[in-house]
Amino acid sequence: MYLYMAIYLDYASTTPTSKCVLKSMQKFWSNDFYNPSAIYPEGRKVAIEIKKAREKCAGFLDCRADNIVFTSGGTESANMAVLGVINACKLDKPHVVATMFEHPAVSETLKLLESTGQIEVSWVKPEEITGAIKPETVLVTVIYVNNEIGSVQPVREIGKFIKKYRHDHNTIYPYLYTDACQAIYLPINQETMNYDLLTLDGSKIYGPKGVGLLYIRDNVKVSPISNGGGQEAGKRPGTEPVPLVVGLGEALVEAKATKDKEFKRLKELKNYFIELLNASKINYSINGDIDKSSPHIINICIPGISSEFAVIALGEKGVMCSAGASCSNLELKMSSRSVSAIGKTECAESSIRFSFGRATSKGEIKKVVKTLLEFVG
Amino acid sequence: MYLYMAIYLDYASTTPTSKCVLKSMQKFWSNDFYNPSAIYPEGRKVAIEIKKAREKCAGFLDCRADNIVFTSGGTESANMAVLGVINACKLDKPHVVATMFEHPAVSETLKLLESTGQIEVSWVKPEEITGAIKPETVLVTVIYVNNEIGSVQPVREIGKFIKKYRHDHNTIYPYLYTDACQAIYLPINQETMNYDLLTLDGSKIYGPKGVGLLYIRDNVKVSPISNGGGQEAGKRPGTEPVPLVVGLGEALVEAKATKDKEFKRLKELKNYFIELLNASKINYSINGDIDKSSPHIINICIPGISSEFAVIALGEKGVMCSAGASCSNLELKMSSRSVSAIGKTECAESSIRFSFGRATSKGEIKKVVKTLLEFVG
Repeated sequence: MYLYMAIYLDYASTTPTSKCVLKSMQKFWSNDFYNPSAIYPEGRKVAIEIKKAREKCAGFLDCRADNIVFTSGGTESANMAVLGVINACKLDKPHVVATMFEHPAVSETLKLLESTGQIEVSWVKPEEITGAIKPETVLVTVIYVNNEIGSVQPVREIGKFIKKYRHDHNTIYPYLYTDACQAIYLPINQETMNYDLLTLDGSKIYGPKGVGLLYIRDNVKVSPISNGGGQEAGKRPGTEPVPLVVGLGEALVEAKATKDKEFKRLKELKNYFIELLNASKINYSINGDIDKSSPHIINICIPGISSEFAVIALGEKGVMCSAGASCSNLELKMSSRSVSAIGKTECAESSIRFSFGRATSKGEIKKVVKTLLEFVG
Repeated sequence: MYLYMAIYLDYASTTPTSKCVLKSMQKFWSNDFYNPSAIYPEGRKVAIEIKKAREKCAGFLDCRADNIVFTSGGTESANMAVLGVINACKLDKPHVVATMFEHPAVSETLKLLESTGQIEVSWVKPEEITGAIKPETVLVTVIYVNNEIGSVQPVREIGKFIKKYRHDHNTIYPYLYTDACQAIYLPINQETMNYDLLTLDGSKIYGPKGVGLLYIRDNVKVSPISNGGGQEAGKRPGTEPVPLVVGLGEALVEAKATKDKEFKRLKELKNYFIELLNASKINYSINGDIDKSSPHIINICIPGISSEFAVIALGEKGVMCSAGASCSNLELKMSSRSVSAIGKTECAESSIRFSFGRATSKGEIKKVVKTLLEFVG
């Protein structure tokens, strides 16, 4: 299609829908297209397919299918988790603990409620989370894998602390919410990871675009954030988009089957990338702690360059990468919020995120470093 | 696939995705799958496709593309219209005028805000709308075609009255919102129809499932109902589901090209259905004013039958129809809110909705009446 050989290293931005997922969706568009709420046999058949898809999703988290709510994607799931928990609690001014690395779907929601005085928010570094919890805290929100720099947060340990806190204080709060959209290669079992709410997004995990899920543990109080028909057990109204929901289930079956192998492969690729960078004359530093990051994301600072220039220049040579989160590109200056948040403000506008996926190979990485050298070497 | 010849007369519940729509979406799943916010050429190319899709949608309403916001479907659009307008207005206790026939996405949203005292709602018959408007009224909401009985409301005339009211009172309020999910066969041009906000849903118009749009006229104040990235000009965050958005554009191009012809054809089919019913021994009445209803919906009351029994019995014989809105089936008793709203409470649980679409033929209708006769004749 292109005159150059394009190399896609922007998997954290979005992934292609896998062939298996596409195939699983196919018959639900125009053949078994029925409304799953309909009571004739064809409708009930479709309802069973939604049930199966829900079970597949639950299989990825090792949780009960009833705890899965289908949404339109990560943004809606995050909004529902945050707003839903705050709206459902009976406190006058609930308190939320949030890391400085949260996705805008979380941080912008919190900032809005903070600005109107409806809630109090403690914006903290991950290591400060446990110390920030107080009696009014209803929610702790921790992005599992930061979408810009790939840092992995110790969700399991934070969850363990929170569970003990709730037990010791004889309270149902705080809940632990984690955005796991970028965490498909990491441990995610609900029992062991100790989260109460969790978000996944189809478009980041080789699933369909326009669908996601919110895991809600039993007895966790979450108000719906929209109103309408009684779908999704009253938690999220609107006729279920059957093909998307089926595709999400399929994507998570694939993700589960391949995660360990992919973790290892992507980690090797990342190490290879670092080796090549080190062997080159490129003056760079890695943003974030490389030992505590997801194998599919590497974010590097190249002093003196402009992120925007670099991404455009690389793009013209067929290398697709990003300055940070794609969703901020339209509105804001090309600046990484997460790079700033880790204290490397001088790097916020001089960084590039490369993110790897199923098609990424050593050959591609070699070419990317070579291309990078052409204008920063 | 089935041992009997199934007849689908539940198009108001959901439509199959058309072949053209499916084809238009195809390459955006796994080939041109890029994030439209990305600044490399492949991403910008996808952004252009979204722009084209927005223009196609605008073509259906004869409005500017900038006035179209993509959503996950009718329910989200309706929630955004209602909550967005209420949240954006500066009044202490805004007033809303709503017909008694609104879709639950509207009526449930209003009831919730009414129950907490945040707003005042006048629930009225369509003819009472103009008289119910007062200085505090920020929104008038009128479902264009009722999804259960097919009644068409005089949106154009109500809009004309509201425009004059705003002009005479030198105020920007009230806005007129209309749910047009079932109104694809009717006049919908923005200029002549005088609405300020309008909802369409992909899954009701042979488009993809999981996508819809909200039309918002210039200068109409609507707060976003979720927070996150700055997509959709800051009005609706979340990475755009490109295939769905492209498919929605295609569906509306098809709908525009076929609407006049389909209006005529469906009206003939409906008349034929009525003729056959009249010629049969079935004791029935039509719910709603047949002369003021969409050609694709007919809702009949058969005294003494149970809606649920009828829909199941017909379903077992291969005729797919509905007792009312599908979305209420899971939660509520099989009862039509709209049939009750027109004062035929005795018919609320004894009515059946048949809704026609592209594949509906005279032969199908003949068979349906024959099937109906088998157990109510």
